Amino acid sequence: MSKITLGRYMWERIHQVGVDTIFGVPGDFNLQFLDSLFHVKGLKWVGNQNELNAAYAADGYARIKGVPGVFVTTHGVGELSALNGVAGAMSERVKMIHIVGQTTRAMQSNHMMIHHSIGDKPDHQQYNNASRGLRFAAAELWDVKTAPAEIDRVIRESFLQSGPVYIFMPLDLSSEEVPASLLETPLDISPKIDTAAEEKAVSAILAALSSSKNPAVLVDVLAQRFNAVPEVRAFVSKLHVPFFSANMGKGIVDETEEMYVGVYNGEIGTPGVKEAAKKSDLIVTLGYLPADTNSGGFSRVLDEQKAIHINPFDVVVKGQTYPNTSIKSLLAALTTSLPQTATHTLPVPVLPAPRIPLDLEAKHITQSWLWPQFETFLRPGDVLIGETGTTVFGLCDIKFPADIRFQAQIYYGSIGYATAATLGAEIARSEREAQGADAKGRMVLVTGDGSMALTIQEIGTMIKQKLGAIIFVINNEGYTVERLIWGARQPYNDIVPTNYAHLLPLYHHPSPATSFHLAKTKAELAAILAKPQLQNPDCVQLVEIVVDKLDTSWRLGSQLAWRGEQHKRYLTEEGFVDTYGNWGLEEGSGGNVKWS
Amino acid sequence: MSKITLGRYMWERIHQVGVDTIFGVPGDFNLQFLDSLFHVKGLKWVGNQNELNAAYAADGYARIKGVPGVFVTTHGVGELSALNGVAGAMSERVKMIHIVGQTTRAMQSNHMMIHHSIGDKPDHQQYNNASRGLRFAAAELWDVKTAPAEIDRVIRESFLQSGPVYIFMPLDLSSEEVPASLLETPLDISPKIDTAAEEKAVSAILAALSSSKNPAVLVDVLAQRFNAVPEVRAFVSKLHVPFFSANMGKGIVDETEEMYVGVYNGEIGTPGVKEAAKKSDLIVTLGYLPADTNSGGFSRVLDEQKAIHINPFDVVVKGQTYPNTSIKSLLAALTTSLPQTATHTLPVPVLPAPRIPLDLEAKHITQSWLWPQFETFLRPGDVLIGETGTTVFGLCDIKFPADIRFQAQIYYGSIGYATAATLGAEIARSEREAQGADAKGRMVLVTGDGSMALTIQEIGTMIKQKLGAIIFVINNEGYTVERLIWGARQPYNDIVPTNYAHLLPLYHHPSPATSFHLAKTKAELAAILAKPQLQNPDCVQLVEIVVDKLDTSWRLGSQLAWRGEQHKRYLTEEGFVDTYGNWGLEEGSGGNVKWS
Repeated sequence: MSKITLGRYMWERIHQVGVDTIFGVPGDFNLQFLDSLFHVKGLKWVGNQNELNAAYAADGYARIKGVPGVFVTTHGVGELSALNGVAGAMSERVKMIHIVGQTTRAMQSNHMMIHHSIGDKPDHQQYNNASRGLRFAAAELWDVKTAPAEIDRVIRESFLQSGPVYIFMPLDLSSEEVPASLLETPLDISPKIDTAAEEKAVSAILAALSSSKNPAVLVDVLAQRFNAVPEVRAFVSKLHVPFFSANMGKGIVDETEEMYVGVYNGEIGTPGVKEAAKKSDLIVTLGYLPADTNSGGFSRVLDEQKAIHINPFDVVVKGQTYPNTSIKSLLAALTTSLPQTATHTLPVPVLPAPRIPLDLEAKHITQSWLWPQFETFLRPGDVLIGETGTTVFGLCDIKFPADIRFQAQIYYGSIGYATAATLGAEIARSEREAQGADAKGRMVLVTGDGSMALTIQEIGTMIKQKLGAIIFVINNEGYTVERLIWGARQPYNDIVPTNYAHLLPLYHHPSPATSFHLAKTKAELAAILAKPQLQNPDCVQLVEIVVDKLDTSWRLGSQLAWRGEQHKRYLTEEGFVDTYGNWGLEEGSGGNVKWS
Repeated sequence: MSKITLGRYMWERIHQVGVDTIFGVPGDFNLQFLDSLFHVKGLKWVGNQNELNAAYAADGYARIKGVPGVFVTTHGVGELSALNGVAGAMSERVKMIHIVGQTTRAMQSNHMMIHHSIGDKPDHQQYNNASRGLRFAAAELWDVKTAPAEIDRVIRESFLQSGPVYIFMPLDLSSEEVPASLLETPLDISPKIDTAAEEKAVSAILAALSSSKNPAVLVDVLAQRFNAVPEVRAFVSKLHVPFFSANMGKGIVDETEEMYVGVYNGEIGTPGVKEAAKKSDLIVTLGYLPADTNSGGFSRVLDEQKAIHINPFDVVVKGQTYPNTSIKSLLAALTTSLPQTATHTLPVPVLPAPRIPLDLEAKHITQSWLWPQFETFLRPGDVLIGETGTTVFGLCDIKFPADIRFQAQIYYGSIGYATAATLGAEIARSEREAQGADAKGRMVLVTGDGSMALTIQEIGTMIKQKLGAIIFVINNEGYTVERLIWGARQPYNDIVPTNYAHLLPLYHHPSPATSFHLAKTKAELAAILAKPQLQNPDCVQLVEIVVDKLDTSWRLGSQLAWRGEQHKRYLTEEGFVDTYGNWGLEEGSGGNVKWS
């Protein structure tokens, strides 16, 4: 009987479910089983500059590839460094497998004072314990007989829960052998469908829809995380009623669709959008995630008697829960059950004309001018990653072309995430493009100087890997999002000044002179955006955009001003740029919406 | 009655125990109480580039200042990123206070989906829970009435345990008020001394010493961590017998003392040292920490019947434990009780002549030549931080001048630590120098290219803070320490190539051209070491030292070869540089030791 090592088994299984790249940082408790990765045909290693970045990269990979992002760390020092990235995947429901090379079983049972341990009789489980609350399942491997099934179980769980799982691999165990024939049984990664439960839920949804005069749909992020994007698109298309997205749901359905209204972000959104949403007598949410940052600071209050929630594992119709469903399957069944011709014939939404920003005439780059530039710069097929801070607020305020895959950590909000996630996302994007799964596209990162500082070294990995990512960094001298909240001029909101001209050469970029671009004026940025290397980048492009430190995206300023008079006064007194006057919160700021 | 905010109270208390600098990263759950830091006279804020670096910087500060390193993070995203740095302080017994700005109490009790949380009914304690095993005490603050006492308690614990403690500060609580008069009662940070227990232990030690013919002392790290360096020096001086250090104990007592023998690292050490140690009929360890990396891979086996251990909280004399002692006080009492004239008159240790490396004649920089350069480069008053990897093995193989404060994470061994710790250590060093506590000195970091990559951005903070640290980076194309263990030529041991000439200008260094130095040959490095800016640096100096990727410090190669014939064969077949032939492990490699 042919045998393979347990390490090899693990990599083969991971590759079988569609993972083609493994991230991580080597350490002396994972080196041996890293070797067997190179024996798996089609599986690639991409080493990261540190472990947190590895977790972020794996997260970015998963979001685009639809399979777990997989990364490897070492006992203690490595796994703890990555923990924040794992928690982010937990919060944002991103498939992830964190493999930790551990001390040998003998070292553990003898409580040996091996480096990376704590105390004079170390418990080598201490780090495993620390991460228990931050994963959906763990394979704590001790016995080679049960290990293959355990590995299979957690790979499956990472799909079912769409979240992080953990593999605890003692160094000595990884080289023990298991039958190669185990690989022949395909790994089942689909949820079990309770058909009866699904039918009940579908009937309830259909009944509610048919009794509604003007239903609407709100597309949100969990639908994407549970790989239900095609089903969401088919449902929205067939139902053919006005639809909205949440910040985190942006781009899941093309914003070029005629029935698309805009981002329904509670009280804080493009004029006309909230008014349109509030006219609906039934809102169907798809994969809803109502965190503060995804709901205009909880200002989007849905009347549960006028709502249907199609959640990952259940459906709630006007307050009544239908359990044991599965969002992807449910949506497919629901769409099939919809009448061929749409029941509702609602008018195509028309929003008021765009407002004119007060700083329209400025020659320097303003945030009111900056964000709309991406509407025309982006092209179908592009992946767009936005960083927490002014950036996500700015990007959520514009309209995307078709087929933009937009990702940001809007709920978890760990700054630094976006830069390292871009590495993984671009690898996933190019793998999918090479496999013919997607059209040709580009990788676009938009981040800020404050955030990029945390994980800046991962740009080196992009250069080493010869990726063509386009990186926009907003240089506004620090944490502007924090300045808006508190301490506008306090030194703790200043960061280390950085001369980005030296970033690409630091990592031996092949053509830094033509790949670094500095924009201080609108004219300069417009010229940069038109450059051929930004249209079809074959190596990392870095665009530094200089913006005043008290300028902000309208949506962020307004969301904070909405907290109350006191905060509005703070913003005004500190001198923040107020694009539309009074933070767009005056009575009737939504404009005289025509909606008929 | 005069009142102050709880935030202000916390900072005042921390400043009272000798902390002058606070590290950290701002976040929206800590901004408000960061403000009150600026109201404390003499307290300074140094913002870091990310949270892990902040923890490392605080750790470095603590090791040099002898008081807790204090740093601030924010709920979830910040605190988790720092956790590996906190665990390092736990492992290496470094005083640390980790202050985490948390969501408000109302957000917590209502399980609100505030950004940085997990799930649709978040438990905001999830991150606090994750770090429970990685601290000695925690002040989980909920009530302003009990909060001041809780803060006092954990500050005290950080001293008593010499390790990390945690302050959980809900945002809203920090601005509530407490009586200012609470600050008038000094914080007691000294351990309670059980005089009877101490007397018993001292008597037992004295009895054992007086019945010994040739006692010896082994100085180790925990003595330094529990602030007992002066007591160790006084004890070793008065006892006047041969003494050794462990790797981690290097420099605690001056290596220029006549009775100093060398680093007793079990079987792996300078010829003559282990033979000398083994001649002793009684070894007194001071603050012993026998981890693998601090004991020549467990090759230093002490006969417990011939050993006295003076530990932080107890004393063990020939196997019998005397509990409830306190190392600093115990050592002082012991030294007082020693007879005025040393009982033992043992000969001054003489080691064999140094061995001649096989690659002596090389023009390029070899590791056998490199490390001894630091013997002459270092000056009394210098602080030296060595990174995990080839560096610490190299530095532990040389003899220091007097008054070198050497720090490395030899037990915990988290790569990347040294660079960020240098920031904190240099701030502590210069504060002590300014306060007249220490003589003038320099900050010297020695790290490797693989390790520096993890935390490279913290060099930006050093530049912003106008520190004069001297940074040596060994460029040997990757993780050479890992290559020696496994996968010598595997791609996972290659790192992202880095052009260090661009590092200083990336962070707006004031004079990068004269502060970056590249050495590929021995002659080049010798010339660099003699430059005035390295003698008296007033800004960051960066020295890149190019070394062959298969060259290593003798001590590291030998410790690995000592694992057995199989590993020796691996090293030889992969072509690693074997400085003395046969990895110095042939019979009699210790030389013909004269010891009389």
